[in-house]
Amino acid sequence: MPIDPVALTADLIKCPSVTPVEGGALQLLDKLLSDAGFETWRVDRGETPNLYARWGSKGANKSFGFNGHTDVVPVGDVDAWTVDPFGAEIRDGILYGRGATDMKSGVAAFAAAAVDFVRDTPPDGAIVLAITGDEEGPSTDGTIALLDWMEAQGETMTACIVGEPTCPEKMGEMIKVGRRGSMTSHFTVTGKQGHSAYPHRALNPLPAMARLMDRLASHELDKGSDHFDPSTLAVVTIDTGNPATNVIPAACKASVNIRFNDLHSSASVSDWIQTEVDAVAADFGVAIDVVTRVSGESFLTPPGPLSDLVSTAVEAETGIMPELSTTGGTSDARFVKNHCPVVEFGLVGKTMHQVDECVPTEQIHQLKAVYARILRDYFS
Amino acid sequence: MPIDPVALTADLIKCPSVTPVEGGALQLLDKLLSDAGFETWRVDRGETPNLYARWGSKGANKSFGFNGHTDVVPVGDVDAWTVDPFGAEIRDGILYGRGATDMKSGVAAFAAAAVDFVRDTPPDGAIVLAITGDEEGPSTDGTIALLDWMEAQGETMTACIVGEPTCPEKMGEMIKVGRRGSMTSHFTVTGKQGHSAYPHRALNPLPAMARLMDRLASHELDKGSDHFDPSTLAVVTIDTGNPATNVIPAACKASVNIRFNDLHSSASVSDWIQTEVDAVAADFGVAIDVVTRVSGESFLTPPGPLSDLVSTAVEAETGIMPELSTTGGTSDARFVKNHCPVVEFGLVGKTMHQVDECVPTEQIHQLKAVYARILRDYFS
Ligand SMILES: [Zn+2]
Ligand SMILES: [Zn+2]
Repeated sequence: MPIDPVALTADLIKCPSVTPVEGGALQLLDKLLSDAGFETWRVDRGETPNLYARWGSKGANKSFGFNGHTDVVPVGDVDAWTVDPFGAEIRDGILYGRGATDMKSGVAAFAAAAVDFVRDTPPDGAIVLAITGDEEGPSTDGTIALLDWMEAQGETMTACIVGEPTCPEKMGEMIKVGRRGSMTSHFTVTGKQGHSAYPHRALNPLPAMARLMDRLASHELDKGSDHFDPSTLAVVTIDTGNPATNVIPAACKASVNIRFNDLHSSASVSDWIQTEVDAVAADFGVAIDVVTRVSGESFLTPPGPLSDLVSTAVEAETGIMPELSTTGGTSDARFVKNHCPVVEFGLVGKTMHQVDECVPTEQIHQLKAVYARILRDYFS
Repeated sequence: MPIDPVALTADLIKCPSVTPVEGGALQLLDKLLSDAGFETWRVDRGETPNLYARWGSKGANKSFGFNGHTDVVPVGDVDAWTVDPFGAEIRDGILYGRGATDMKSGVAAFAAAAVDFVRDTPPDGAIVLAITGDEEGPSTDGTIALLDWMEAQGETMTACIVGEPTCPEKMGEMIKVGRRGSMTSHFTVTGKQGHSAYPHRALNPLPAMARLMDRLASHELDKGSDHFDPSTLAVVTIDTGNPATNVIPAACKASVNIRFNDLHSSASVSDWIQTEVDAVAADFGVAIDVVTRVSGESFLTPPGPLSDLVSTAVEAETGIMPELSTTGGTSDARFVKNHCPVVEFGLVGKTMHQVDECVPTEQIHQLKAVYARILRDYFS
């Protein structure tokens, strides 16, 4: 009996696994996979629940991995939903609920495909599922913890698919072969407080901040590369909090988020930022402090065997030859790429994180079929 | 018996007249002046208590006015004071208390000088005291209300001294013959919210705000004029309030305070600001809203009879020939100047608005002597 990925998605939606709560979702998968002959381990770290499952032998020459998450973002204003966010209601062929697209359907599809595959055509190799309960949170004890544990245990993957939603509008139209890096720099410009009638006795940090943000925002980082859109820089906030119009404030803060492609690294971007900071600090005589947090470096799995494998399966099951893209935010693929070739393919993500998140049940069946074909082709 | 201006200042300090509370200060002056033969009127408007007093006949050819305020700013952290802020304690010849310099001493000095003068050498003319209880607050129902009322009643001044502290360090070194104007412009730049990974789908208001503030702050309004320092522009706050580094905010606010000299008016400055706003709005495709509040236009009482009268008196009593200055913030002289020539002279303002506000008692005696000499010379 093949596993019904829609029923499995519905069962997962009914587990209220808002980050970092496990909510029964990993337990449910643990049972399903154990019953199907997988060895399973709970790889919890800190508050974060994670599940690792392997069918076949450790360190096999072919060891195909799937990565995904069962945690979901909060439901927000529950009254704005037209359904129970954890009810998994199906209306007119559409399954509703938090996590319906991001990404309980993806986890259900690869779990169902894997279980059917090892039962019907046991491969010469291993199948690995690395499922985290912290992708929507700080992501410090999720996929990273799984990969750390795998490395320590000698567990390996020779290729991996991350099952996040990747299609903007139509099922099958896009797989992701890389991601831009992401980093956020926090600036504090410090001058000297004073009365706005006597600006020469004060040292106003705001003109320096305005100049610095103007210089950063108006700089073209690049024009894009072979596989990437141009890098972007967004000033996301500038704040002073001075309610008194007759007072020149002592300090001002700002934050800048940078999405950089493979022409840069977080280190090279940081160097450029520091150069700009030093120039403005010297021009205005103020002190400028920068604290940078790197979410992930840019990465690319160059078009090749793995992207061919996935593209072929997608086209066979959906009739659409997918675009190889590097657009969008970050994903846990940024961690996986240090271990093996990784690409991302999943269904249409339009309603992710929204009220009335939903997915046509047909897409879940298609996604399972794509994953199943990938497994067949990989091990054939 | 001459009135002791130090005792009178102390009595006024003991009235806790934090804006807009009257605190007994105007009642005390009302009694003193009435007993001395002044006609008095309480010219309260809204919550604001004001006192008008005239000796001599209404509309006299020579009608010398004094303007001042009895309200004080809050004491702030009372534990930081080494004295009772309303205790009027004298230590080593120094009188302590909120309002000791700003400006209960000034009011006491001109009231004492006026009472002595009309008793000992009744002049051919009138002496007018226009004293408000709202100079430190919004100033909408203070000196303005007194001047409105005077105009309606046919009450006039032919010259006026505002008794605010004017000396930076040494008694007698500065009188003010004008003030720069002051205005505050509040800017709101509105774009379109979005995800910082997809800046092309959003319209970030922050780069436009940074450019606008840079353009305004780096512009030289002028190099000063015959009697004025250069005009200044201070960006006093820029605020967004966006805590999410992956979100491009929809709007950003900023405020700019401008102190402009007699080369400008609030209208001409507003025109320049609007030109800059329009240019930046067009460059960035954002909407920029500006709301401007004018605190006062610049004004100058050109050096002449009134400033000569005051300078001569200051030099005779202090041994210092005062500088004719237009520096500093705004004062109620900006309202008086529409009615008659006005200059400002008072004692050293160093400790105004501070903890342990204080004044040497000797300065209060000197100030009374200066005001008394001005009256004698004016009516001689
Ligand atoms: Zn996700
Ligand atoms: Zn004052």
